[in-house]
Amino acid sequence: MLHAVIMAGGIGSRFWPRSRKARPKQFLNVFGTGTLIQNTAGRLQGLIPPETTYVVTHERYAEQTQAQLPALPAGNVLTEPISRNTAPCIAYAAIRLLEKDPDATMLVLPADHLIQDVRQFHEVVRVAAEKAQEPDALVTIGITPTHPETGYGYIQYDGPSGKEDTLRAYRVRTFAEKPDVATAERFLDSGDFLWNSGMFIWRADTILNQMQRHLPEAYEAFEPVQQVVGTEAEAAAVEQAFRRTPRISIDYGVMERARKVYVVPGSFGWSDVGDWRAVYEHSEKDDHGNALQGNVIVHDASRCYVQADDRLVVLVGMHDTVVVDTEDALLVCNRENTQRVKQVVEYLHAHQLDEYV
Amino acid sequence: MLHAVIMAGGIGSRFWPRSRKARPKQFLNVFGTGTLIQNTAGRLQGLIPPETTYVVTHERYAEQTQAQLPALPAGNVLTEPISRNTAPCIAYAAIRLLEKDPDATMLVLPADHLIQDVRQFHEVVRVAAEKAQEPDALVTIGITPTHPETGYGYIQYDGPSGKEDTLRAYRVRTFAEKPDVATAERFLDSGDFLWNSGMFIWRADTILNQMQRHLPEAYEAFEPVQQVVGTEAEAAAVEQAFRRTPRISIDYGVMERARKVYVVPGSFGWSDVGDWRAVYEHSEKDDHGNALQGNVIVHDASRCYVQADDRLVVLVGMHDTVVVDTEDALLVCNRENTQRVKQVVEYLHAHQLDEYV
Repeated sequence: MLHAVIMAGGIGSRFWPRSRKARPKQFLNVFGTGTLIQNTAGRLQGLIPPETTYVVTHERYAEQTQAQLPALPAGNVLTEPISRNTAPCIAYAAIRLLEKDPDATMLVLPADHLIQDVRQFHEVVRVAAEKAQEPDALVTIGITPTHPETGYGYIQYDGPSGKEDTLRAYRVRTFAEKPDVATAERFLDSGDFLWNSGMFIWRADTILNQMQRHLPEAYEAFEPVQQVVGTEAEAAAVEQAFRRTPRISIDYGVMERARKVYVVPGSFGWSDVGDWRAVYEHSEKDDHGNALQGNVIVHDASRCYVQADDRLVVLVGMHDTVVVDTEDALLVCNRENTQRVKQVVEYLHAHQLDEYV
Repeated sequence: MLHAVIMAGGIGSRFWPRSRKARPKQFLNVFGTGTLIQNTAGRLQGLIPPETTYVVTHERYAEQTQAQLPALPAGNVLTEPISRNTAPCIAYAAIRLLEKDPDATMLVLPADHLIQDVRQFHEVVRVAAEKAQEPDALVTIGITPTHPETGYGYIQYDGPSGKEDTLRAYRVRTFAEKPDVATAERFLDSGDFLWNSGMFIWRADTILNQMQRHLPEAYEAFEPVQQVVGTEAEAAAVEQAFRRTPRISIDYGVMERARKVYVVPGSFGWSDVGDWRAVYEHSEKDDHGNALQGNVIVHDASRCYVQADDRLVVLVGMHDTVVVDTEDALLVCNRENTQRVKQVVEYLHAHQLDEYV
């Protein structure tokens, strides 16, 4: 059966000052249409029911997750005692699914992405889930690139090289890191590259087998959990496993090492909503290209993004600027520099300004 | 004897959101060194004692004035029941001074200007006060222009034409409105023009005589006050006078019409601190040209002015920008557009957003 595993452990510091340690990106109502995790769960409707949808998150976010996703059975929120990147998270989820369904196929989804064409997304998932039934197959979803984006990783694949993709799985050749502009342009021109969306489909037994082969340290850390899953001893074993496992992503740990890796290309209006600029780009805009949320007055402003609360925000003669106003902190940022907000959070950490983090 | 009359009736809407109807510009601690009215009163030290220093302000600001200027005798705060521009304000003050000192000379000062070289300012006032003893002489203080400013009015005078001014009174030829850039440049090049500072020195009896001649309606409105000044009937007569008098400035009403008008040029680092840009220009700056007040962190910012309170304000990749953050309203403004803040306040008025005005 097809299960969804939503990974919701991140803290999304590039959404500061709206995102805080106590309220990370996935729990924010960034577009005014529900929070990102609510949208992620919501777009599974018609594909995967809440009963077989799981969320893996840090302990401290368990309550918030349940509050935001009331349709989810309480037992479907799996908690990590410490964050150890995606490979351990996925190992734990796979073990939990296998306990209930030895035939489980899992769709792994980041909690905080945007998808505009849900119908096409479902089609892509169905094709990927079918491919995932082949022995040892690991399937990822790639996004047909629309511009030479430097903020995403890329997947080189045995695609139709410049011709339009058909809806099927292609063999993956290599994974590429976030490129510089020149490389991104080359990738785009070649027609051989897709954006790496971080969404995966595989059978739970397959991913555990592949972890055993390519990432034995992580696999072994979770072996004791397999023995006690579903019993009272599970929590203690999970705690142990997360303390023992190395901190590693499923991309580095498994995908780049495995041999039968496939990608299904999609073009369903995807974004990882990585920073305020991405939020601006995917927001509705007025005639001057402004996306304004809250109590905002503009006087000669264009291409600005403002997210305000109760306080009145007035912009005069401002262009290409992001303003995010919260109760205790305000960000004013050039729209081209929104990636740097992460450094601000690092600065706040380094200077013991934890009240703002 | 020399008296000071500080005019403090304005509301300074270009300092929004810091300035509000309940707390106008003159009562703001704009430079972090006391409020503007405190600085105006403070720089009289050694020139005019508090006992002969008066403030004319709107009734609603009387308490605030006394709180900010505790050294001032309570009776020296003269209140206007309604604002009627400078001519009525000056008529009332002149009548009050004459009642105590028939020989009174008055130095009329806006409450909200900046003067950097106080010693030179005192010298200029002394020269002007001496000239003011001549029959019918009205004396104004002009500022030697340093750049083709379009935000000030100008005074054309019989100066030394391009040669350096000596410290003396010169005959005024004409007053000129705020010019466009080309005209301002012509004014500057000619050497015949000074900035109109709005500071005046004259004998109280002279200004009343000149008002009687050139502005009889205003003079006649205040005649009844002359009969009852110092008695219990004064308040009611003042109320009547302000209701009857036309609304007119002393510049239009008297200075531009009178025949014996003189100017003493000074170059003591004067500014009318007309908008946030002027505040920026007269503030101390860091190596990147930023003037930052309050809880502010900048990450690649230059030539910015920030005035924050408790809230943390973070600027990333911002240049030439003014940010003023208050409890209930925030302004983000291009440094070249700070004059337009006035229009924001007009907009707020027009849209019944009076809570922010």
